[in-house]
Amino acid sequence: MRIELLCTGDEILTGKTVNTNYSHMAGRLGEVGLTVSWGTTVGDDRGTIYAAMLQAAGRADAVVVNGGLGPTVDDLSQEVAAEAAGVRLALDPAWLKRIEAYYSRRGRVMPSTNRKQAMLPVGSEIIDNPIGTACGFSLSIRGTPFFFTPGVPREMRLMFDEQIIPRLLDLSGLETVSRVKRFHTFGIGESRADQLLQGVPGLAPDDAVKLGFQSHYPQLETKLMVHAATTTEMNRRLEPVETEVRRRLGNFIVAEDEQSLEQKILDALEDADGSVATIEMFTGGMVSSRLLGASGGGCRVRRGVVSRDLEQLADAAGFEHAGAGVSVDSKTAAALAASLKKRCGSTHALVVLVSVSGDPDRGDRRGAIRIGIVDEGDSVVRKATLIGSGQWVRLGAVELGLDCLRRHLYGMPVDQRIDFETG
Amino acid sequence: MRIELLCTGDEILTGKTVNTNYSHMAGRLGEVGLTVSWGTTVGDDRGTIYAAMLQAAGRADAVVVNGGLGPTVDDLSQEVAAEAAGVRLALDPAWLKRIEAYYSRRGRVMPSTNRKQAMLPVGSEIIDNPIGTACGFSLSIRGTPFFFTPGVPREMRLMFDEQIIPRLLDLSGLETVSRVKRFHTFGIGESRADQLLQGVPGLAPDDAVKLGFQSHYPQLETKLMVHAATTTEMNRRLEPVETEVRRRLGNFIVAEDEQSLEQKILDALEDADGSVATIEMFTGGMVSSRLLGASGGGCRVRRGVVSRDLEQLADAAGFEHAGAGVSVDSKTAAALAASLKKRCGSTHALVVLVSVSGDPDRGDRRGAIRIGIVDEGDSVVRKATLIGSGQWVRLGAVELGLDCLRRHLYGMPVDQRIDFETG
Repeated sequence: MRIELLCTGDEILTGKTVNTNYSHMAGRLGEVGLTVSWGTTVGDDRGTIYAAMLQAAGRADAVVVNGGLGPTVDDLSQEVAAEAAGVRLALDPAWLKRIEAYYSRRGRVMPSTNRKQAMLPVGSEIIDNPIGTACGFSLSIRGTPFFFTPGVPREMRLMFDEQIIPRLLDLSGLETVSRVKRFHTFGIGESRADQLLQGVPGLAPDDAVKLGFQSHYPQLETKLMVHAATTTEMNRRLEPVETEVRRRLGNFIVAEDEQSLEQKILDALEDADGSVATIEMFTGGMVSSRLLGASGGGCRVRRGVVSRDLEQLADAAGFEHAGAGVSVDSKTAAALAASLKKRCGSTHALVVLVSVSGDPDRGDRRGAIRIGIVDEGDSVVRKATLIGSGQWVRLGAVELGLDCLRRHLYGMPVDQRIDFETG
Repeated sequence: MRIELLCTGDEILTGKTVNTNYSHMAGRLGEVGLTVSWGTTVGDDRGTIYAAMLQAAGRADAVVVNGGLGPTVDDLSQEVAAEAAGVRLALDPAWLKRIEAYYSRRGRVMPSTNRKQAMLPVGSEIIDNPIGTACGFSLSIRGTPFFFTPGVPREMRLMFDEQIIPRLLDLSGLETVSRVKRFHTFGIGESRADQLLQGVPGLAPDDAVKLGFQSHYPQLETKLMVHAATTTEMNRRLEPVETEVRRRLGNFIVAEDEQSLEQKILDALEDADGSVATIEMFTGGMVSSRLLGASGGGCRVRRGVVSRDLEQLADAAGFEHAGAGVSVDSKTAAALAASLKKRCGSTHALVVLVSVSGDPDRGDRRGAIRIGIVDEGDSVVRKATLIGSGQWVRLGAVELGLDCLRRHLYGMPVDQRIDFETG
């Protein structure tokens, strides 16, 4: 089925706003087994929108239009859609009531301009917008079904997922239940993951499960896309593949689906009624900010310290080194972690030390990384070398530090070799 | 002049990659006084690209094509362009030499597949790519000039700015020198900035300078877009407007053009051979990470500490409070800054304390912010209240803290009221 996306709005056309609505819609269609064949962007201009609608109607089996459903004069989608379909606009009294109720719940009177949002082309079917005043609708234009969505991303995403995708699946004759199962790994590159998972999709009958990767260094996302007629059938197809992927990727899986590496760490700390303090070097504070940004981070992260000066970090940890000097090595990482834990009264401490060599203007930099972790009874260290741009080393060091803490908390070895390290 | 942008590539069409090339090109065109009238996205499919080229040729006065110039079989732009123009492809020996030289400089032999990148439609003019192997070119298709650019953002941006924009300006008959002057402010909302700058563009003759705003909370970007026949004329037009904008926005200007607030702080610290230590609360470490991320940050930021627990921060600063307890107030902010400066041996210390109240699930949160700054001789405090989402309060507190430090370093008052604060 040929599906087209038509995005309208001067903000998008002129590049003032990056068109993430497009990539979201196209990506979601791919995940449920549909494909986009053509994308069009036009501004808030009557003639151009009209021409774009007619062209799409002539080419596509279904068209999703985004934007132009707001209350202002430059919101033209309903009007132009009516013109293109050869029908007139009519007030939908039920939707007008919805808008009035929306305002009255907020203690305000509906501005008269919003009445425009309840004017729909005759013959259109409402696509409900449970969180806004812009009314979505579907309408046949020259025999092609069009689906109209608002430009506000939150509203569009909800309506697209819950109402438009099911209608498109219906039209396509595809089986109608679908899901994307996601695994997030750290330490495996895309080509090795591809090798490791050879033959795994074949565990499901009839090519029902598709495997895909999305690499965003330092993590890799492995996606299993599955479709079926019923949820039971879908789960039956997915289950053997999901189990086998989990087995093969093993300890490298840092989180699944909507979870994150940092959230897994906080969950484990919460289960143990624990807390953590961090020291980090060269990483711009990303270790602590990742943990603080996750749910519960504010109360489980006792203290985070960042500096590029190891003496400053030693002082911050309360580490007495009697003027002997400190250097980026495993012993120092472990000693700093022990001092820091004591000083902050936390149950755990994580230390990420990075020593970078190589001229940034002359190619790659070499980052020597030393990680130290202590808890109430145990102390572990991890050393690794990463080579690449400063940012590559930085992101890798942050992920390695967090992943070592995750592995330690879940009883996994912290020294399993990762694809990115050298030597 | 009607300019169209035609973006090709499965990664873009399917939404796997967000199309920032489109927004960059469209935005740059707007900045030099040109406008985009239509955007098209198609995949790596011969028939679709062909149809898209013919449609664009029929509608537009000029078309910029992005993507499809690589060495692989799914890179189709040259081939389809030749077909659409009714010409054949021919090897460009000079460009082939360029590719070979590119590889030999890197100690490698050119893979044979790259030969394809030197095959150009007969009659096309080369658009040089100084940093890659994909050859840009221009070609007339059915009487409309087309400009072909590679999908690699870095290459596209350079070629677009240096070679395509001048050609488009030539075609448009517009005056050919242009510039965008940018002011970054903190503390003024878009509507107040608009009022403050009433009549200012009129200081330049003939509407030669256009004023625009781009709001990205907590900063506002004010843009002056100017065009002229010569650089001298352009500067003559811009100068009175630029001076007046700088006068009216005054202390709220945190940086201009490519500069940033944090870089201004580091520049001032470097001039004074100074350094800074930071303590922050509720901000996820963004104060120190902003400073550390700027050039020179690594050596000027002695230490950054983050926690949501004020006792932890007091201990980190070495602040003795004899069990009396600490609270988020101006006195504590100043006292922590003084202790921290002494402990870290820095010339300056910045403390950002935030106390948040209000249930996050029930509407807006109220953030009481207290900022303390000390240097070798002086101590200043700033208090403010921000109301909004947790993230709104957090971003505002970070910016306010950094801006107070900037103001202090440059001898400006830190207590000038900002539009976002309450009470």
